[in-house]
Amino acid sequence: MDSITPIFVLPEDSSLGLRDQICEMVSSAITNQALSPEKRLPSCREMAEQLGVSRNTVFSAYNRLMDLGLLIAKNRSGYFVNPIAHEQDLHGHRADLSDIPAPVKFKPLGLVPVDNPLNWKSYTYPFIYNQIDPDLFPVDSWRECTRLALRRTKMPAWRDDSVESDSPQLLQQLRQRLLSTRGIYIDKDEVLITLGAQNALYIIGASFAHRKKPIAIEDPGFSYGRNAFQLAGNKVVGVPVDNQGLIVSRIPDNCQLVFTTPSHQFPTMVTMTNQRRKKLLEAAVAKDFLIIEDDYEAEMNFFNNRSQSLRSLDKNGRVIYVGSLSKTLSPGIRLGFMVAHRDIIRQARIVRGVMMRHAPTIVQEVVALFFQLGYYDSHLRNIERRYKRRWHVMNDAINKHLGMLEQAPTRGGTCFWLTGPKGFNSTELGERLRERGVLIDIGERFSLKKDQRSFRLGFAFVPLKKLEEGIRIISEEVKRQI
Amino acid sequence: MDSITPIFVLPEDSSLGLRDQICEMVSSAITNQALSPEKRLPSCREMAEQLGVSRNTVFSAYNRLMDLGLLIAKNRSGYFVNPIAHEQDLHGHRADLSDIPAPVKFKPLGLVPVDNPLNWKSYTYPFIYNQIDPDLFPVDSWRECTRLALRRTKMPAWRDDSVESDSPQLLQQLRQRLLSTRGIYIDKDEVLITLGAQNALYIIGASFAHRKKPIAIEDPGFSYGRNAFQLAGNKVVGVPVDNQGLIVSRIPDNCQLVFTTPSHQFPTMVTMTNQRRKKLLEAAVAKDFLIIEDDYEAEMNFFNNRSQSLRSLDKNGRVIYVGSLSKTLSPGIRLGFMVAHRDIIRQARIVRGVMMRHAPTIVQEVVALFFQLGYYDSHLRNIERRYKRRWHVMNDAINKHLGMLEQAPTRGGTCFWLTGPKGFNSTELGERLRERGVLIDIGERFSLKKDQRSFRLGFAFVPLKKLEEGIRIISEEVKRQI
Repeated sequence: MDSITPIFVLPEDSSLGLRDQICEMVSSAITNQALSPEKRLPSCREMAEQLGVSRNTVFSAYNRLMDLGLLIAKNRSGYFVNPIAHEQDLHGHRADLSDIPAPVKFKPLGLVPVDNPLNWKSYTYPFIYNQIDPDLFPVDSWRECTRLALRRTKMPAWRDDSVESDSPQLLQQLRQRLLSTRGIYIDKDEVLITLGAQNALYIIGASFAHRKKPIAIEDPGFSYGRNAFQLAGNKVVGVPVDNQGLIVSRIPDNCQLVFTTPSHQFPTMVTMTNQRRKKLLEAAVAKDFLIIEDDYEAEMNFFNNRSQSLRSLDKNGRVIYVGSLSKTLSPGIRLGFMVAHRDIIRQARIVRGVMMRHAPTIVQEVVALFFQLGYYDSHLRNIERRYKRRWHVMNDAINKHLGMLEQAPTRGGTCFWLTGPKGFNSTELGERLRERGVLIDIGERFSLKKDQRSFRLGFAFVPLKKLEEGIRIISEEVKRQI
Repeated sequence: MDSITPIFVLPEDSSLGLRDQICEMVSSAITNQALSPEKRLPSCREMAEQLGVSRNTVFSAYNRLMDLGLLIAKNRSGYFVNPIAHEQDLHGHRADLSDIPAPVKFKPLGLVPVDNPLNWKSYTYPFIYNQIDPDLFPVDSWRECTRLALRRTKMPAWRDDSVESDSPQLLQQLRQRLLSTRGIYIDKDEVLITLGAQNALYIIGASFAHRKKPIAIEDPGFSYGRNAFQLAGNKVVGVPVDNQGLIVSRIPDNCQLVFTTPSHQFPTMVTMTNQRRKKLLEAAVAKDFLIIEDDYEAEMNFFNNRSQSLRSLDKNGRVIYVGSLSKTLSPGIRLGFMVAHRDIIRQARIVRGVMMRHAPTIVQEVVALFFQLGYYDSHLRNIERRYKRRWHVMNDAINKHLGMLEQAPTRGGTCFWLTGPKGFNSTELGERLRERGVLIDIGERFSLKKDQRSFRLGFAFVPLKKLEEGIRIISEEVKRQI
């Protein structure tokens, strides 16, 4: 036998059981053509010795590989690669395209760079947003819901591919357990499941872009939303914000949509007053625009009841309500939704279908069960309890150490918005803080005018014990500027 | 006690166990405010009698609901709704917006209507495309992979939210087990995970739209792709197809991208010859365009080895390769990918991030394990075996009953493309066939010129025994026209 016996080695870091690791190893070798059909595999005994495992484990692995059609057993000769599994005629050469220059040049997309450094976890004090404490994720509950979702009787429903594939179970749960708590009561054709709130905003942008009228957004505001609207082909204009929220009288004429975050204004976290909400709804009729209400962190209220959603006060079908389950479940899961007049949902459904068809059905089903079994409610209360404590610690630390800065009046949410005096430069502050292991969100990222006076501190991911120390370091650097 | 005791009824059709059904029922009642904190819940015995279940089951359900914080037990008094769970101040009124006229009018999006009727399953002979036989889906394997993916040691990785979140495990598996079989060898920054091939095409369209040069597509061609490019803001032009595939000499000047399906041309199913592939790659350099290679059904070859992918022959980084796992796994799972020069991937990653961030991490992890454990390979062979048989039955039936029509020469794939003589109207044929329980895909859907002479017959979902009878019915209706 000419070919050299490949040396079999188990992977160093695997969460699979030994038998499955062996299966993996052998099937990789088959794919990579390290094993050929003419050559006998090591016997169970030989392989067991090579790998330092029991013969039974190897025997079990080989049997499994035979079940999978990758190996065959020839009487008295041993185990061989199944020739049928080996029929691929792989090209030996590697098309070495690594050094080829780009065949095309792209102009900049004109988007706001919004991402935090990939290694944000390595910072000691990551006062940044949108990262939840992973320990809070109810793993066991999620696992149970997944198990139930995969039960055989339920399978056919979720293997279908249809542009209409919003899970009826999920829709019912959303209507019953989430939308009702926001005072929103709707029919099934007035809601669309999306791949998170970001996806909903992009779909809205793509649905309305052909009407060629600008979208007004809060300034400072939600940069991710701004990027979505712009990339989808819309012009974006800013509307200033004060301590009651979006300033309605400053909404320009001729906008088709106004994007707002009334529960907790992103990024200042102020809650839009009831008076301001009424004004906004009246202006929508008077100036003929629609409102996109992104209900960011509606649930993160630590002192009061939730504010009334704009949608619940809307008598004219002018509010498009956008929600996300990323905060309360896990951002990696990617599930969101939008509620609007059925004509708008119809358009959005077509757009979504062309973009991506629909959200993965299995994810929808698991989330539906998560609601059904009461896990959403209890998890929500758990989060609120934990963040309420953190909010207090942050609030105290900020009052103690950062009193020289102006603080937007907030009553909840998972961050604080701080503004320095005229000439203050938070971008510079951010750079100096990085060197000290502190990450903050600099204000110019949220501002169409590139205003550098403000910055944001999230606290979802900084350990409780470290909050005050981090704030103290920030105050040291702030004092260097003031 | 004034409030009427709600009558508790278990849902008629539930796949949950009895205890969980009771939990569901009670927590719904709490959310809907059918239960108030002042009123005692039925005792275990009372509830058991009402529902016709055992006391132990109710006791178990009540305990669970207490664990979830939804119920409390007061000594000697019984079970009550936890007041904290009841704090929502729901608005009683239903904002009745059902009858409100739309606040906005949308112009038509100019897309090709591509969907099959929602009730396609109720047709006896659904000779349509893109629906796989659900019985083939390897449920147990999928369940096992899900279980492994949710093991605690793996959790932190998939709960992160990062625009960079392509699962490293999935990328490795794709490179090792799928791309290598197409002769494609790449680095990690040359590939992007998407929510299916449709999503990849839309992302490409959105990445290139600002360059304002048309995209050429095969005609007849992939209407879903055409919709994606157009919705993303590109002009689309058609290039005719013959028995060797896309006619390279007919590619207009000034296109920036040429979309092609060389493995099995969509919808004619012809395989692009090697000669034609070389011509296409040469033209890409000469006329300065990029090629989008959608490797549709590369695996559905029943007679020959797979054709060489364009990407594997590409020496200039001009081929963008798009693949999907929807055919081989399940369309409901929604996972696809694109391979291209790293500058193009970088742009596409930004675009994807703004549109939807990334595909759900849990889905990526489960699919990675599905590859790792060899299930993808064995499932693929299973599908090929089953479809090969069907292909033969269809081929024979078509030769027998539909010989009066022109048949595109194919050697694989999951459908047949048939063309009538001049004046033949497949749209009319399709309408008459519907009344007889037969669904076909009419040709004008795939044709920029709205050509009505051709139609397509898929056979992925028609039971084997019914294939010939369905073809015979089609021939009866065809003869009425010819």
